[in-house]
Amino acid sequence: MKGRMDTASKKAVVLLSGGLDSSTTLAIAKSEGYELHALSFRYGQRHRGEVDAAVRIAQSIGVKRHVVLDIDLRSFGSSALTDDIEVPKKGDPSGMLHGIPVTYVPARNTIFLSFALAFAESVHARDIFIGVNAIDYSGYPDCRPEFIAAFERLANLATKAGIEGEFFAVRAPLISMTKSQIIQKGLSLGVDYSLTTTCYDPSAEGKACGFCEACLLRLRGFEGVGLKDPIDYE
Amino acid sequence: MKGRMDTASKKAVVLLSGGLDSSTTLAIAKSEGYELHALSFRYGQRHRGEVDAAVRIAQSIGVKRHVVLDIDLRSFGSSALTDDIEVPKKGDPSGMLHGIPVTYVPARNTIFLSFALAFAESVHARDIFIGVNAIDYSGYPDCRPEFIAAFERLANLATKAGIEGEFFAVRAPLISMTKSQIIQKGLSLGVDYSLTTTCYDPSAEGKACGFCEACLLRLRGFEGVGLKDPIDYE
Repeated sequence: MKGRMDTASKKAVVLLSGGLDSSTTLAIAKSEGYELHALSFRYGQRHRGEVDAAVRIAQSIGVKRHVVLDIDLRSFGSSALTDDIEVPKKGDPSGMLHGIPVTYVPARNTIFLSFALAFAESVHARDIFIGVNAIDYSGYPDCRPEFIAAFERLANLATKAGIEGEFFAVRAPLISMTKSQIIQKGLSLGVDYSLTTTCYDPSAEGKACGFCEACLLRLRGFEGVGLKDPIDYE
Repeated sequence: MKGRMDTASKKAVVLLSGGLDSSTTLAIAKSEGYELHALSFRYGQRHRGEVDAAVRIAQSIGVKRHVVLDIDLRSFGSSALTDDIEVPKKGDPSGMLHGIPVTYVPARNTIFLSFALAFAESVHARDIFIGVNAIDYSGYPDCRPEFIAAFERLANLATKAGIEGEFFAVRAPLISMTKSQIIQKGLSLGVDYSLTTTCYDPSAEGKACGFCEACLLRLRGFEGVGLKDPIDYE
């Protein structure tokens, strides 16, 4: 998770979902002087508005290139975010399974980081940014610091660049921040949070439900900084 | 890279390219009594006959399920296997870059294993088989034992199953075998190598070129066991 000190033409690949965290991460990479290569996925997620939000955010913050890849995680099934399993609402105990929510998508961040690594090696970027967060993280195993460190280690064994001595860094600048701290950081960098989307189960018109785990974390984050969330809720 | 001792309904996800190595790997997993879940990719490779071969092999060996995923590695460019870079033939020094061939696809095995991990977690398989080989391996960094070990470690940090104490094993049974040993093993298990494809640059009719690195390794392997390769060459 080390950064780079050189500023000349340094490039970063940034995983961008269109949510609050990844948008803030993109703004952080921008503020550090990186040339930005954003990467988003259509992966059969229920909240397809995500990709539209990612496109708006990439334009708003300013990236060199934005690649949107289609990958079909529905082929394997088994998550409320890609299947027909109902997204759990507040206080619904069926939404958790041994502390891990049913919205967990198997190996999602591993897949996303693998593509980010391929992208990074192809454009000669050595820094990969991901907006995972281990504090308000909903219990996903692939949002923990030990996962990020293990992926970074893998990246440097997996690639031509890695074995030639060019070090890949996987940077997760939000990993130990609270949602309120993330929002504060993003606002200080000029992120327009009205462009982002967070809800796991938005209405047909794209309004956030306000009751899923993701909405609750987001609303609590804005509460913590004494501000009103600028997006629309049902 | 440990196996499992229990035999009741044990499941494996096997990465299947349709080549000689992955077909042998599938047969090895079969011989160990696994219920087989094969996974192949259309990733913009030049040799599209690969996927047809994978389908034939999966049928021939007998699998429970065969998933073929479309992923577009061409979005990132930079390999002779997915781009318009010419595939190097024997004795062509431009085909190598610091000991790594231009046919290297950035992070390919990392991406393939990530999807295999998602598949495995979804169907409750705990063993993932991959036909990488570190002896006759063409110099790809993601075919080395240290890469496989690092991915296995990642898999157990990345997943719900992993953190719940269910151990994922990434098995690479060919990793220290020569091509001739692989062919001998496959023949002993009844693999029909006439169904497989290996060439990086086949003719329009699907005949192998006989001169690319992959063909040369394969031909040398059959020579080593004193047999004629059953596929057609130009």
